[in-house]
Amino acid sequence: MKIICTRQNLIQGVTTAQRGVSPKNPLPILSGILLSAKDNQLELKATDLEMGIQCTVPANIQEEGSIVLPAKYLVEIVRRLPDTPIQIETEQGINAVIRYGQSEITINGFESEEFPAFPAPQGNDTFSLPEEELKEILRQILFATSNDENRPVFTGVLMEMSEGDLRLIATDTHRLALREEKVADIAGEKNIIIPGKALNELSRVIGAPDRKVDISLGDNQIIFSMEDTRLVSRLIEGQFPNYRQVIPQGHKTRLRIKTKDLLESLERASLLARVGTQIVRLSLETDKMIIFANTEVGRIHEEVPIYLEGEAMQISFNAVYLIDALRAIGSDNIYLDLTGPLSPGVLRPVDGDQYLSLVLPVRTS
Amino acid sequence: MKIICTRQNLIQGVTTAQRGVSPKNPLPILSGILLSAKDNQLELKATDLEMGIQCTVPANIQEEGSIVLPAKYLVEIVRRLPDTPIQIETEQGINAVIRYGQSEITINGFESEEFPAFPAPQGNDTFSLPEEELKEILRQILFATSNDENRPVFTGVLMEMSEGDLRLIATDTHRLALREEKVADIAGEKNIIIPGKALNELSRVIGAPDRKVDISLGDNQIIFSMEDTRLVSRLIEGQFPNYRQVIPQGHKTRLRIKTKDLLESLERASLLARVGTQIVRLSLETDKMIIFANTEVGRIHEEVPIYLEGEAMQISFNAVYLIDALRAIGSDNIYLDLTGPLSPGVLRPVDGDQYLSLVLPVRTS
Repeated sequence: MKIICTRQNLIQGVTTAQRGVSPKNPLPILSGILLSAKDNQLELKATDLEMGIQCTVPANIQEEGSIVLPAKYLVEIVRRLPDTPIQIETEQGINAVIRYGQSEITINGFESEEFPAFPAPQGNDTFSLPEEELKEILRQILFATSNDENRPVFTGVLMEMSEGDLRLIATDTHRLALREEKVADIAGEKNIIIPGKALNELSRVIGAPDRKVDISLGDNQIIFSMEDTRLVSRLIEGQFPNYRQVIPQGHKTRLRIKTKDLLESLERASLLARVGTQIVRLSLETDKMIIFANTEVGRIHEEVPIYLEGEAMQISFNAVYLIDALRAIGSDNIYLDLTGPLSPGVLRPVDGDQYLSLVLPVRTS
Repeated sequence: MKIICTRQNLIQGVTTAQRGVSPKNPLPILSGILLSAKDNQLELKATDLEMGIQCTVPANIQEEGSIVLPAKYLVEIVRRLPDTPIQIETEQGINAVIRYGQSEITINGFESEEFPAFPAPQGNDTFSLPEEELKEILRQILFATSNDENRPVFTGVLMEMSEGDLRLIATDTHRLALREEKVADIAGEKNIIIPGKALNELSRVIGAPDRKVDISLGDNQIIFSMEDTRLVSRLIEGQFPNYRQVIPQGHKTRLRIKTKDLLESLERASLLARVGTQIVRLSLETDKMIIFANTEVGRIHEEVPIYLEGEAMQISFNAVYLIDALRAIGSDNIYLDLTGPLSPGVLRPVDGDQYLSLVLPVRTS
């Protein structure tokens, strides 16, 4: 393999592909990025066997071929290269010479034949979403996934597709986020669970205005295709809990609150409450919410103006869960709907009914 | 104590004073900031018994008094307060209520009587330096101090004062930095060793244009007085090594190099060399320096254009020491003077003779 590439294209390629590399992978070759030169393109691939990312960047191909280079060093070196044309040439298929100006770096790598076969995309049921829109949907959902690998379904996001409707749901059993979207391309019915990790990496590579992501489903895999990048992920097997049961129908109390007011008050309360259990008590009165926390460091009493409809009440929450939900909601004003001190609180944007998130209260006393 | 203060002044005060708090101090009260209200000023003090910082900010004093509040919480809380007038009122001398709008935080503190007496400034031999200039001097010197508390003198900076001349020197025995400055106010002769930690904190609070730092010396202490802030530090006792012996007189080889060229090449070489011992070999030829490193990750060959006067030679250095020296030098072009592969390299700015730094070579083979 022998190619010439601009520094900018090379940075773009290796920083995208490295998102497929898992830091704790036991196979040495999986700490690498597979570079393949053909058809006037440099293709870069990385995988942890659960998920893979592949992207292409323009390059002048002088000799076709391929090699696997360690992702960590490749990324750091490429970022520090001068802004001149960069030549990469393999030697005996196991190392690569990177030449720039009068200087060169030789990195030891692996033969490309040893790189595991990339999950071959075999998609059906394709539909598309604008990149910016999908990024915002993921921002609203991903915070509610769990990190506990012992219960895999909660580390994933449930994607329900049903005749023109797309619905994404995540829950770690303490909170839940749900987003609905009309997508005309969707036909038939299908439910899958996508690993949160793959969606997190996806959300980092998308977001360009006026571009679309094509989403297609295969047997136990999902493929996200962007302009020069493709992300393939296995699906999580298992039964996602019946989330509909958890979402209260109706409410006894509805608050309308400025997102920023409540968020800033909770952030201050959380500074003190973190010394304990992050529990804050909310007292809801006609025109204000009183937030209260008491720990060994001190105590806080915050007043936030609200509009209250229905019954006044007291309820306690984990401050961090409320803060996460408020940061994700993407609306200047919210409704907080409550049915009682032991029932979940439901947060919704005032302007729209496509999104809600739900937080379980904490039983105190 | 009862005061009203703007958020901005309070942030300014607590973030400056907290630089005097040591994170690993065994006395609980020393994790606090002493707040004292009098004469329409709020005075804030913190000390780890080696060093202390004191500053004043304007405040409306409704009741004089004082209290010690935990620095960590105070800083975090004050940063998150809304931009309204802030009232602070003590309760029974051991906690303080911070009021803003309709809300309030009560923080538990300590009685001010328990706070250790602040080292009383008792200065003589005063001279002044512009804040910006002192900050730049410290930037050029402090990187060469040692972190090894077992050999205290090397953690400090030697300050030599001699009839109109100021000289600052730091060394960790692997490298050395020396800066000279004409200061007309200096009379007589005196040498002291100032803790690097105190100078590091000083460099963070100074830098305002058109302001001066007054420097005065007492028995075993030094006082830096700025407009609203004062930093007092004990001196380090002991004998600083005779640095003059270490600086080579003359040279056999002089290189003139663009600082940026050499720095960028060494930064790339260091990415690979860090896998080993950070050793890079320099081959000096008439018109170029070849930088070479070889580790299990790969190898690098960098060429940097130079002007060479004198003998060609080969010499090896720790790449990190050269990088630190180049980042500190503050000049677009440097001279690197060498007398042999086992003698220190001396870096000087091309434009000025007030500064030099010296790096010991590494013996290879």
